[in-house]
Amino acid sequence: MSTDETFVLSTGSALPGDPIDNTALAKRFGVNAQWVELFVGTRTRHFAVDLGTAEQTHTLADLAAAAGAQAMSRAGLEPTDLDFIVLATATPDTLMPATVNVVADRLGVDQVATYQLQSGCAGAIQALDVGRKLLDDDHRTGLVIGGDVCAKHLVLDRDTTGQPPSELINYVLFGDGAGAVVLSADAEGATMRLDTVLNRFTGLGRDPAQVIHWWGETGPTPGVQAVTEDYKAIEERVPGMAVEVLHELLDRCGWGKGELSFLLPPQLSGRMTQRIVKDLAVDSATEVSVVADTGNNGNALPFLQLDALAPQIRAGQRAAAVAIESSKWLKGGFTLEGL
Amino acid sequence: MSTDETFVLSTGSALPGDPIDNTALAKRFGVNAQWVELFVGTRTRHFAVDLGTAEQTHTLADLAAAAGAQAMSRAGLEPTDLDFIVLATATPDTLMPATVNVVADRLGVDQVATYQLQSGCAGAIQALDVGRKLLDDDHRTGLVIGGDVCAKHLVLDRDTTGQPPSELINYVLFGDGAGAVVLSADAEGATMRLDTVLNRFTGLGRDPAQVIHWWGETGPTPGVQAVTEDYKAIEERVPGMAVEVLHELLDRCGWGKGELSFLLPPQLSGRMTQRIVKDLAVDSATEVSVVADTGNNGNALPFLQLDALAPQIRAGQRAAAVAIESSKWLKGGFTLEGL
Repeated sequence: MSTDETFVLSTGSALPGDPIDNTALAKRFGVNAQWVELFVGTRTRHFAVDLGTAEQTHTLADLAAAAGAQAMSRAGLEPTDLDFIVLATATPDTLMPATVNVVADRLGVDQVATYQLQSGCAGAIQALDVGRKLLDDDHRTGLVIGGDVCAKHLVLDRDTTGQPPSELINYVLFGDGAGAVVLSADAEGATMRLDTVLNRFTGLGRDPAQVIHWWGETGPTPGVQAVTEDYKAIEERVPGMAVEVLHELLDRCGWGKGELSFLLPPQLSGRMTQRIVKDLAVDSATEVSVVADTGNNGNALPFLQLDALAPQIRAGQRAAAVAIESSKWLKGGFTLEGL
Repeated sequence: MSTDETFVLSTGSALPGDPIDNTALAKRFGVNAQWVELFVGTRTRHFAVDLGTAEQTHTLADLAAAAGAQAMSRAGLEPTDLDFIVLATATPDTLMPATVNVVADRLGVDQVATYQLQSGCAGAIQALDVGRKLLDDDHRTGLVIGGDVCAKHLVLDRDTTGQPPSELINYVLFGDGAGAVVLSADAEGATMRLDTVLNRFTGLGRDPAQVIHWWGETGPTPGVQAVTEDYKAIEERVPGMAVEVLHELLDRCGWGKGELSFLLPPQLSGRMTQRIVKDLAVDSATEVSVVADTGNNGNALPFLQLDALAPQIRAGQRAAAVAIESSKWLKGGFTLEGL
């Protein structure tokens, strides 16, 4: 029997190393820093790879465990206080074991259910959705984490000057990181209440607009680019989908736009977020965005936004979050109230 | 509010191509057919790759959609009757989009929640666990699928005669396939009731005994074998864990061993399954195993066992299933009753 109410006890986050600004990126990859600033709108990002030595400095497990540990510490929880862990990612360290189990080990957690969702920009919402549905009479408290590490898709030993913009964009758009929340069926010590979660596949008959390949022993398929986006489709469809999600969330809660104190918009890039925020037209709300500083680190983003929201939200204040995954057109969103 | 009872409306399965016997395998990879027969105990397996041409014949989406379609058809369901889809796999076709969303598209399903679990031998149990927790007042019926395709880890253009047994074992142990069940909160038309599900990480402080790597643009790491197993650890630990799971399941249900009509044991290999069945010592129960004919196809196996069980189980008969994932030591199991 699941519980009717889901509370957020705490948040946490972890970003690898120092922020990499566009000048550093331009120097390393031969992109134009001004172009990145203007057309991508992302100022800095963090990489789990040392751009100088090409060594991976952080695994997904490192970042997810750090974010999770911070959230647990802020909630005053010991490893034995957790009843489950959910991790959402598009970039697990290995296919097996699932990274969530390495994270459990790092956190000193044992004998609980663990789940890892394979997902992209809507993955954090899916993880929150599964997390709240796992809460019941026996499972009172769980850790929900999202994170991504794009190290295996950054080719640092290649001359980037000859690369097409469709490949170079991946170096300026993405970043690495993880974020976490502790969910509980009990209100005690909670800072926020999760009101409603929307999580929906809407891709019937539509081509995916983001594809990320992986390879095993046999290595990359000749002529296949590992990470591709259909930016035209993304620009055309994502803003409208975001508006639909926001309206559906407000309808479900019976809230007017004017009652929102905070808006957590989709975080595709600094520039796209600006455009979507304009379309969402929630003038009363304070925007909580992180992408211009963190880069698009996928499954981490909504958790990083929650981590930024937590110190600001006051009792009775309302927040709505929207995430759109263009991979195969997933809608995601949730609403919160401050306690 | 989740429901208290979970019903199985139907099952389905899909195996690619013709079964490959040990003689065919011996001819292709230079292994000893008798050795495979004797020490692995697997007679045949199915591959989503043509061993002659090395072409991939089936994707995971192909197999998962076929298994799902069969289960839906057997339950008399249309695409609009589903409220969610859960897919468990260790080998998604791509990292993005998640394969579950391609499967939804293939099945003509839209506007529902989809979830993909990254998991191994215990993944089918995790998927059943998540599936039953998703059932509530608004979500009455869902499709739960498990499957794996090891095509990206079969290197067919390499001379296998010089390969160490630790690598060759991967060619004889594994297979490809998918299985599915339709879960419902409503008893109407149900053939079985899912009583209890056990799903637990037990790997604190233990090294993983199965590791599967993946690579992106940068390709395989020199010197790193893509798929490795610690067979000594698996042989030492898995049988004891299986006994613990069975006893805990029976305790939860208040059932005696003698009350079990069917036993669905772990399906690591034909040989290991024989050994575990002996340790489980449920003499009254009919064993439902498939691995000797299908090979170890990971997330598909418990669904294939359910597909084999469904035509046999009668009203009031009881069944227990056990799955152990050695990747990072996950315990899994469930009990069922015939209706």
